[in-house]
Amino acid sequence: MNDKMISNVITKKPMVHCITNNVTINDVANIVLAAGGSPIMADDPKETGDITRICNALVLNMGIVSESVVEGMIIAGKESNRIGNPVILDPVGVGASTFRNETAERLLKEVKFDVIRGNISEIKFLALGNGSTKGVDADESDKITSENIIDNIALAKRFSEKTGAVIAMTGEIDIVADSSHGYVIYNGNSLMAKVTGTGCMLSGVIGAYVGANKDRVLEAVTCAISAMGYCGEVAYQRLQKINGAGTSTYRTFIIDAMSLLSDEELERGNKVEKR
Amino acid sequence: MNDKMISNVITKKPMVHCITNNVTINDVANIVLAAGGSPIMADDPKETGDITRICNALVLNMGIVSESVVEGMIIAGKESNRIGNPVILDPVGVGASTFRNETAERLLKEVKFDVIRGNISEIKFLALGNGSTKGVDADESDKITSENIIDNIALAKRFSEKTGAVIAMTGEIDIVADSSHGYVIYNGNSLMAKVTGTGCMLSGVIGAYVGANKDRVLEAVTCAISAMGYCGEVAYQRLQKINGAGTSTYRTFIIDAMSLLSDEELERGNKVEKR
Amino acid sequence: MNDKMISNVITKKPMVHCITNNVTINDVANIVLAAGGSPIMADDPKETGDITRICNALVLNMGIVSESVVEGMIIAGKESNRIGNPVILDPVGVGASTFRNETAERLLKEVKFDVIRGNISEIKFLALGNGSTKGVDADESDKITSENIIDNIALAKRFSEKTGAVIAMTGEIDIVADSSHGYVIYNGNSLMAKVTGTGCMLSGVIGAYVGANKDRVLEAVTCAISAMGYCGEVAYQRLQKINGAGTSTYRTFIIDAMSLLSDEELERGNKVEKR
Repeated sequence: MNDKMISNVITKKPMVHCITNNVTINDVANIVLAAGGSPIMADDPKETGDITRICNALVLNMGIVSESVVEGMIIAGKESNRIGNPVILDPVGVGASTFRNETAERLLKEVKFDVIRGNISEIKFLALGNGSTKGVDADESDKITSENIIDNIALAKRFSEKTGAVIAMTGEIDIVADSSHGYVIYNGNSLMAKVTGTGCMLSGVIGAYVGANKDRVLEAVTCAISAMGYCGEVAYQRLQKINGAGTSTYRTFIIDAMSLLSDEELERGNKVEKR
Repeated sequence: MNDKMISNVITKKPMVHCITNNVTINDVANIVLAAGGSPIMADDPKETGDITRICNALVLNMGIVSESVVEGMIIAGKESNRIGNPVILDPVGVGASTFRNETAERLLKEVKFDVIRGNISEIKFLALGNGSTKGVDADESDKITSENIIDNIALAKRFSEKTGAVIAMTGEIDIVADSSHGYVIYNGNSLMAKVTGTGCMLSGVIGAYVGANKDRVLEAVTCAISAMGYCGEVAYQRLQKINGAGTSTYRTFIIDAMSLLSDEELERGNKVEKR
Repeated sequence: MNDKMISNVITKKPMVHCITNNVTINDVANIVLAAGGSPIMADDPKETGDITRICNALVLNMGIVSESVVEGMIIAGKESNRIGNPVILDPVGVGASTFRNETAERLLKEVKFDVIRGNISEIKFLALGNGSTKGVDADESDKITSENIIDNIALAKRFSEKTGAVIAMTGEIDIVADSSHGYVIYNGNSLMAKVTGTGCMLSGVIGAYVGANKDRVLEAVTCAISAMGYCGEVAYQRLQKINGAGTSTYRTFIIDAMSLLSDEELERGNKVEKR
C-alpha cells in the first residue's frame, strides 16, 4: 500500500516546519532527518510565517504551549493554508488544562488542518468535548481494543467530516480515517510508551511523509504510522539481544530503524487493514 | 531500607509535574518514565495550576529561569501545597547570578518544599547565604569528604529544621537529612559528572519516588539517590565492556539501568549508612 | 598543529556560556563536557551578564531566536567583550527569515565576535548580503568543492578583515581563516548531516577550545573543527561494525569519540592543510 511513499520522502527531502515542545524537540528533528525529511524548528511569531513559506509541511504540537508560541502557530498555520502546504495538529495533553483546551479550540477555528493525530483520549476530547485525558497519556478506559474498533472508526470518520482533516488515533492499535475510508494499524510495541515523545516523533514523521506525498494524505499518514510502529518492532528485536539494554537504548534504536527503513521493508512488515 | 519503594512507583505510576530547564528536560522525562512514573512538563502560568492538580508530585528545577517560568512555578507550588502534593526544589546554579539568588529566595518564601536537593555548593548558598558555586557544578573546596561529613550532616539538619524540607546534598558522597535523622550514600561513579543533567534527572526520580511514597519522604529521597548512584555504577560496568564507548553511551546506559531496576536489586546494591 | 590544544581544555576546564537553541541544547552541553569544558546555559537578559562574567567563553547560537533571547545575547556579548572573553557566533538559518537577518545584523553591530562559524550559505549571506540559505542547511549550489576553495578562502579572509573575527565555513570541506591565514580541513563524514545539531555542537566545542587557548584563536578553531570531523570519522567506523545501527547511534558515537579524544590521536588523524 505504500508504493514509493518512503522513497518519495528520501528523494524530495521535504522541509518540515515543526512548532513543537521542548521536551522532545531534538528527537523530533532527528527522526524527521532519519525519515528523509529536513526539519526546521522556529516558533517566534516574528518568523514563523517566513519559515513556513520555504517549507513543504507544518507540524503544530501542543506539548508545551505559551501565548507567544500559539501566536506563532496561528501565523504559520494560516500561511501554510494560503500556500497549500499540509498542516498537522498534535493536540498533546488536550483535556488536561483549560489553557490547552482553549488553545486547541483556537487552533481548530483559525487553521484548517489536513491531519489531526493524537492518542484516543485527546481525539475524543476534541471530537466529543469530553474524554478522560490523563496528562499526556491516554486513559486506560479509552483504550482502542478489538471490541471498540468499529465505534472508534466511526468516530474518526465523523470527526474527519466535521474538520476536513484525516484523523489518526494512535495507541497499541491505531486508527486512521477520512470521512469515507478507514485503516487499522497493528504495528508497534508496548515498550514505546516508556519512551517520551514517540507520539511527537510520529507527528514529525507524518509531516515528512505527507509533505512528500501531498496527493495521498490518508495513505501517507497510514504509512507513517505503520512505519513508526514497525520501527518500534525492529528496535525491540534488536534490544532483546543486548544484556542490560533498557528504554534509553530503545529510543536510540527506534530512530536508527527509521533511518534505515525502505518501502520494500515496510511492504513486508506493515500490519495495515483497510476498513 | 527500601522495602517496596520501587514497586510502589511501578504500581502507582505517579504523575510527576516537572517545571524544568530545557537543557535536560528530555532526559528528565525519560528517566521519570524509566523509574516507573509518568512525567508531564508544563511551565506556563496559565496552566501550571491545572496540571499540578492532576499530578502526584511537583519538581521545580531552576536550571534555566525566566520571569514567566518563575510565575508558573509559584502557582504550581502553592497549588501543590494546598492539595498536599510533595514539592521538590532543585536550585540549579544558585549563587551564580543575582537573578537565580532572588528566584530561590522567592520560591522558598512563597512555596513550602518537602525536599530540597542540590549540590553541596548550592545547598550551602541557600542555608548560609554563601558558598562558592562555580556555575552549575559544586566547587572543589566545598566537596563532601569523609572529614567533613559530620559537619555537613549537621548543616543539612539545621537547614531542614529551618525549612521543614528533607535536605539532600549530592556529589561523590551524598547526604540526606531531615531535622532529626541523616543518611550518607556512597553509591555513584565519578563519570556521572561528565553527563549533563544527572542532577536534574535525580530530582525527577525523587519526584517519582516521593510521589509514590508520600508517607516516607526521607526514606524515599534516600532510596532515589541511592538508586540513581547505583544506576551510575551498573552503567559504568556495562560501559567498560565496550570498545570506544564514552560519555554519551554512558548517559544512555544510566537511563537503561533505571528502567530495569527493582527493589531486590537495589536492596543488594545500595550503599546507604544511617547517621 | 594542535600541540597541547586539547590537553589545555582538559586541564583548564573552561566554562562555556552557551546561549543556544532548544533543539540541540542538550547535545551542545554534553559535547562541551565531553571535550573537557564546563557548559552553562542561561539566556534570560536578567542573568546573562552575571553568568558570562564567571565563564571563559561565550557561544551565541541563533538556532531559535526570540526578542528576549536576543536581548540576553547582546548583554552577554558586550560583557564578554568588556572582560576580554572570546565570543563565538553561530548564525543558524540566517537568510531564512527577516527576523533572523535582522538579528544577525544587530548582533554583528553590537557585539565584537572573535569567531563566526556557519555553513557556507550562512557565511555568504552575512558576508555578501545574499546566498541561498535553505532553512538550516547549506544550499547545494553553494557547496565548497576543490574547484571553489580558493575563492571561498578569499571570501573568508575579506569577511575576517571586515569583522575582525576568525571565519569558519563548515560542510564536507571546511575552511577557516583570519584576514591573513587560511586552513582547509578534510575531516568528517557525510552521515553527520543526518544528525541534527552537529553544527551547533561544533560551535560549543569551539567555545571550549578557544576558551582554553585564547592566545591562538585561529589554530584553536581549526583544531576544534578538525576534532569534530575526526570524531565523525571514528564514530562512523564504529557504526559500521554494528548491525542495524543508524543515525541515532551515530549521534551517540560522535559524542563518545569527543569524550575520548587526545592531542596525540588528533595529531595522527587530522586532515588539515594550511593555505
